[in-house]
Amino acid sequence: MEKRAETRTMKAVYNRVDQRIIDELAAIVGSAGVTTDAEKMAVYAHDETSEAHYFRMPDVVVKPANATEVSEILKLANRERVPVTPRGSGTGLSAGCVPIFGGIVMSMERMNRILEVDTQNLFMVVEPAVTTGEVQRRAKDAGLLYAGDPCSAESSQIGGNVAENAGGNKAVKYGTTSRYVHGLEVVLPNGDIMRVGGKCVKDVSGYDLIKLFVGSEGTLGVITRIWLKLLPLPKFKVGLLAPFEQMQDAIEVVPKIMTGSGVVPTSVEFMDSLSIEAAAMYLNATLPHGDAGAYVIIEIEANTQAQVEAEYEAVGKLLMDNGALEVYVADNLSTSQRIWAARKCIAEALRLVSPVYCMEDITVPTSEIPGLVAEITAIAERYNVIVPCFGHAGDGNIHATLLKKDMDDDVWESCKAKVLSEIYEATYKRGGNLSGEHGIGAKRIDHFERFYDPVALDVTRRIKEALDPNSILNPGKVVRPA
Amino acid sequence: MEKRAETRTMKAVYNRVDQRIIDELAAIVGSAGVTTDAEKMAVYAHDETSEAHYFRMPDVVVKPANATEVSEILKLANRERVPVTPRGSGTGLSAGCVPIFGGIVMSMERMNRILEVDTQNLFMVVEPAVTTGEVQRRAKDAGLLYAGDPCSAESSQIGGNVAENAGGNKAVKYGTTSRYVHGLEVVLPNGDIMRVGGKCVKDVSGYDLIKLFVGSEGTLGVITRIWLKLLPLPKFKVGLLAPFEQMQDAIEVVPKIMTGSGVVPTSVEFMDSLSIEAAAMYLNATLPHGDAGAYVIIEIEANTQAQVEAEYEAVGKLLMDNGALEVYVADNLSTSQRIWAARKCIAEALRLVSPVYCMEDITVPTSEIPGLVAEITAIAERYNVIVPCFGHAGDGNIHATLLKKDMDDDVWESCKAKVLSEIYEATYKRGGNLSGEHGIGAKRIDHFERFYDPVALDVTRRIKEALDPNSILNPGKVVRPA
Repeated sequence: MEKRAETRTMKAVYNRVDQRIIDELAAIVGSAGVTTDAEKMAVYAHDETSEAHYFRMPDVVVKPANATEVSEILKLANRERVPVTPRGSGTGLSAGCVPIFGGIVMSMERMNRILEVDTQNLFMVVEPAVTTGEVQRRAKDAGLLYAGDPCSAESSQIGGNVAENAGGNKAVKYGTTSRYVHGLEVVLPNGDIMRVGGKCVKDVSGYDLIKLFVGSEGTLGVITRIWLKLLPLPKFKVGLLAPFEQMQDAIEVVPKIMTGSGVVPTSVEFMDSLSIEAAAMYLNATLPHGDAGAYVIIEIEANTQAQVEAEYEAVGKLLMDNGALEVYVADNLSTSQRIWAARKCIAEALRLVSPVYCMEDITVPTSEIPGLVAEITAIAERYNVIVPCFGHAGDGNIHATLLKKDMDDDVWESCKAKVLSEIYEATYKRGGNLSGEHGIGAKRIDHFERFYDPVALDVTRRIKEALDPNSILNPGKVVRPA
Repeated sequence: MEKRAETRTMKAVYNRVDQRIIDELAAIVGSAGVTTDAEKMAVYAHDETSEAHYFRMPDVVVKPANATEVSEILKLANRERVPVTPRGSGTGLSAGCVPIFGGIVMSMERMNRILEVDTQNLFMVVEPAVTTGEVQRRAKDAGLLYAGDPCSAESSQIGGNVAENAGGNKAVKYGTTSRYVHGLEVVLPNGDIMRVGGKCVKDVSGYDLIKLFVGSEGTLGVITRIWLKLLPLPKFKVGLLAPFEQMQDAIEVVPKIMTGSGVVPTSVEFMDSLSIEAAAMYLNATLPHGDAGAYVIIEIEANTQAQVEAEYEAVGKLLMDNGALEVYVADNLSTSQRIWAARKCIAEALRLVSPVYCMEDITVPTSEIPGLVAEITAIAERYNVIVPCFGHAGDGNIHATLLKKDMDDDVWESCKAKVLSEIYEATYKRGGNLSGEHGIGAKRIDHFERFYDPVALDVTRRIKEALDPNSILNPGKVVRPA
């Protein structure tokens, strides 16, 4: 696969970053904003994808302070045919910010201001390097909610959330990052600075360029300013944990919650038995019904105590009527933390089981979750690997995670390739797709080319070529030149 | 303006539809699906834009029955350089489906099947010519909600809603059509059939092509199948009508409802005094506080009687505390109809005042509504025209409507041009844009070129050219060739 990547991208011929270019970069951002020191650059060579072949050192790291500097850097790179990889805090899981062809890494870290919290129009205007957690806190301080909430909220940056269209645990009710982006300032590969949208709630003036750039993984432009819509802050919330004997029953209850009780929960998460087991080991605790086939974890938010109670009682009854072994209710911070502990620690727990792992992000119609998880278990058994599944039951988004255990590196690579291929095939047969929230990046580009609708792939490529004809911006991600 | 349109589009040279092409069309769709009869074609020559210079007869109307036929027609048109204008039921307000360069009108009317209502995944799969009202009813029959709700729901078709990204009265809570489109089958100008998305709730695999095609006004592809997300059906609703002495107070209360009570209403509509007056005349009724400076009309939905009561009491108190002259509550169908009567009849009422009118669709940050309405009133007085304003207060979407009264046609045209220009300038100064839900179409293309961010305009043009290099699909709408 690596070989193919190189062959394909030979069409875009890049130049090396030489001293002249480094001097020009320093003239744009000041010398303190340019790094070529290998030790300092090491952190910019990877994201949270664990495998070493997704690591790649940049030739230079540059830190612009504003859109004009971003523009100057891109003009320079475009003229000199040098690849530029924009980067937030590197919490991605698809090698999306890894400079796989070297060149310039453009770290947005200096552009970290919250420019405005507008409580009249319910908007926040931010630069890309503000952490998502900080956006959430500033909204909360104003009695408002920023509804985007990826699991990495404390470390990820809002610019990265926008570039990847981050999801998270609350997407069932609130949708993904995309829904809250009403305006963008974006610097295009040719250095042009574009502004679309702003504080209008509704706007259909022209194509929806905002939604095109959201989730384009830094391949179409560099985001330098974001207008985020805020919501009223719900006043009450409650968590429910329901163990089930069978995954099938656990998943079948989800649409029943929506249609039967009329409640749209904020979160509907699930874990399979392998995930529950790993979490119990990591927490060094006996989990309730630790031998369950599946956990469903639900969060409900409302504006009054009475309403939240009415809703969790309705949902709790539905869970019990549909095969839950028990329903644990958490209506304060400490019980809530206990309920969420197992779900929130999974990534760490699996890392403990195996420091080398491959976390997938497949998405299917929700009704397909039980069948697909069963199929993944069968595939895993056939290849003698362990693939716990957990994720977002309300969204059909499954983090099937391949664990490397007692295997040589090359056995792991070849085994992983086969297992992934079979998992993706099963996913596509069930009307699913490669990624629900992590993106294609460099990690999934081969499978994207193989599985994605060929006409849609061609449209994607034509858009990329129309906006970045020299393919200098984040090359080797999402789509390659034809 | 008309002259300019012709000059600009001379670059795309189109051929006339001759008998050979008509025969080829008949071979594709059958002779019953091809019309050249002037009388029968007249209905396909306009939308609901009232002015005669937006009327244009097609050379031929063709009615494909499936995506393959759409594909064959587009291949033919692309080869022969004949413009194709796709069309739903013609309820648009921007001349978006008018064949302004003649050629082929492609009416989607035969593709009117609901293919599936999936109560497990909460999805409906439809062809484009199903009316929006029918989509809503089929969802309701299954205990579900299709949340898209343009005012034209009974007559407009879902394909048109998607192509225009239709808004409506419920967008405050539910967003616009775009939010509910999770999958599309689209035929591209070259005849390729593309499928993206489907029944996945979350999907970030590649660029968000779905959102790019939604709202592209039929200029990038012809939509032949749509996957719509459904929601639980709220069980209770209540309407509130609050007259205010001043527009300023009426609008300032909107964010207070969101932040103060935490309630996100389904609708927050407003009418200015001219609109109230016109509605009273049309209904031939004395409206409550008919001399008010503004009406605010609110709808609240919830799942329990207790909850809806708690919410409307909280909102009602806020309205009274913030200057409402009175708050009328409607909690059953007949009182609700009375409260909504004034708002729902405005378009008809204004048509009665003046059969020739120009309904605008500007959108601004909500806090700018009072200032902009005052400015529009001042502009109107300066030019001696009447411009009532009403619309969606929760969205900042104002239907300023220029009425032709006691004026010759050419005086009206010249006066309209000046008034529109000043209104748009005022809108842009306040961070607004041309259209919140009606689109650019042919009607606003000159102003779009003038006011839209020039870099964004260039991006729009590059995307159009990348997907429709011969500019055969709905030419003269949104963006013209460079």
